[in-house]
Amino acid sequence: MADTSFRSVDVTRVRGTEQVCAADCAAAEEPLEVRLHGRPFAVIMRTPGADRELAAGFLFAERVVTGSEELGTIEYCADPSATHPENIVNVTLVDGTPAKIAQMLADRRHVTMSSSCGLCGRLTIESLRTEGAPLAESWSVSRSMLSSLPDRLRAAQRTFDATGGLHAAGLFTADGQLDDLAEDVGRHNAVDKVIGRMLMRDALPLSDRVLFVSGRTSFEIVQKAFLAGITVLVSVSAPSTLAIDLAMETGMTLVGFVRGNSFNIYAHPERVAM
Amino acid sequence: MADTSFRSVDVTRVRGTEQVCAADCAAAEEPLEVRLHGRPFAVIMRTPGADRELAAGFLFAERVVTGSEELGTIEYCADPSATHPENIVNVTLVDGTPAKIAQMLADRRHVTMSSSCGLCGRLTIESLRTEGAPLAESWSVSRSMLSSLPDRLRAAQRTFDATGGLHAAGLFTADGQLDDLAEDVGRHNAVDKVIGRMLMRDALPLSDRVLFVSGRTSFEIVQKAFLAGITVLVSVSAPSTLAIDLAMETGMTLVGFVRGNSFNIYAHPERVAM
Repeated sequence: MADTSFRSVDVTRVRGTEQVCAADCAAAEEPLEVRLHGRPFAVIMRTPGADRELAAGFLFAERVVTGSEELGTIEYCADPSATHPENIVNVTLVDGTPAKIAQMLADRRHVTMSSSCGLCGRLTIESLRTEGAPLAESWSVSRSMLSSLPDRLRAAQRTFDATGGLHAAGLFTADGQLDDLAEDVGRHNAVDKVIGRMLMRDALPLSDRVLFVSGRTSFEIVQKAFLAGITVLVSVSAPSTLAIDLAMETGMTLVGFVRGNSFNIYAHPERVAM
Repeated sequence: MADTSFRSVDVTRVRGTEQVCAADCAAAEEPLEVRLHGRPFAVIMRTPGADRELAAGFLFAERVVTGSEELGTIEYCADPSATHPENIVNVTLVDGTPAKIAQMLADRRHVTMSSSCGLCGRLTIESLRTEGAPLAESWSVSRSMLSSLPDRLRAAQRTFDATGGLHAAGLFTADGQLDDLAEDVGRHNAVDKVIGRMLMRDALPLSDRVLFVSGRTSFEIVQKAFLAGITVLVSVSAPSTLAIDLAMETGMTLVGFVRGNSFNIYAHPERVAM
């Protein structure tokens, strides 16, 4: 069986003043729809692999099942009309009467939880493209500015130094001046705080700003950035496959692994002046 | 105004064969309930601070508002009966007719998204204590075993080496043998995969296993571990305040910042043999 947990992607590697095109590996990210007796229960952005186990563990944490004796079958979608049956898992419960399943779906709606999760998966890329503001074409940033972002962000991060435990999102001008910064235990929250502040100031779209985030770049981070009009998204770590796909399709420049004077460009390198 | 983004906590610092009790700082994690015209819309686990901005950015990403002109007021809860008004933000929309708000709440229920987020906040600690399996008291692990976990996990992580971008969760025996491992772009998913696999094998509760996770420890990670009967939870990075609170109250040993032969114990150090 092919390993679906990562995928080869093309990157532009920048090392000081050198740059080369190369193949790299990115961690796979795909939506998994968990169904209960055929009815949609949740969508989880995950790395493919151990999907049945993920569904079981998720339903256990959600208290839909409290022990293995309550679990019936857990199977990939057998519906021939499904476009991506590998991204759908159907779970049945031993005691899954229609009334009980209906109750569980209703209960779930009362605990609508979120870590600022966004929309889901490939089907939404098209709708995002029509919904988001057009990204500014003629705008570029310098290599040296990109390389300076981690130090600039860290210098402004009060709490991180105290706890070692917070994510941060920073909004920078093209010449690297810090415009706004937010910290949070959640990466998505830090991005929402920065974009929310700009929204409240009526400063969207952020076409002439660079968004820099600590940690990894997921589909949802790219989505939030795109809706705010961000053209250059930078992170200290790796993007997922779906993050790269969305950046490619929306025209966003996506940079990762900014360390010292090195970084990788995963999408639209034309905005980085060489 | 006091800084609410972190809190002082007591830790047992282990450095080689030395150990001292000390004060440390932990990143604050608290639930924020976002209400739309007074009706619950979402709960976000976040670090307090810039809450109004977080609510605005979150609603923008969710497409509840698409521009600043649609935002009415964003205010902390003014209900005198609310126990934690600082954790509730109410948002009104300029064009927020009752019919429109009802429609938005209904739409939200159709896109029940999740990154395997769990229940929420302090009120649930009591119910968790009654719902979870009792944690094994008489069980201990050695300092050297805890220090060996990062290398053991890394050695078993195929994909991380390829991508640099995956979280991992590993289940270990008391003498440090790896029992199971899962990788995912989401920390919560990796934990759900490991616990789900054990659930499917009818191997819960995991009272004689150590759960080791990459990245930070949030409330939800501790909650998932507790429900599975894990007594010792270890991570390479920092726990949040709410993670520490939950570990303290449920009797779980919580270890963080495992690096070289050093680590910090945030809750119940009595299970670590010195």
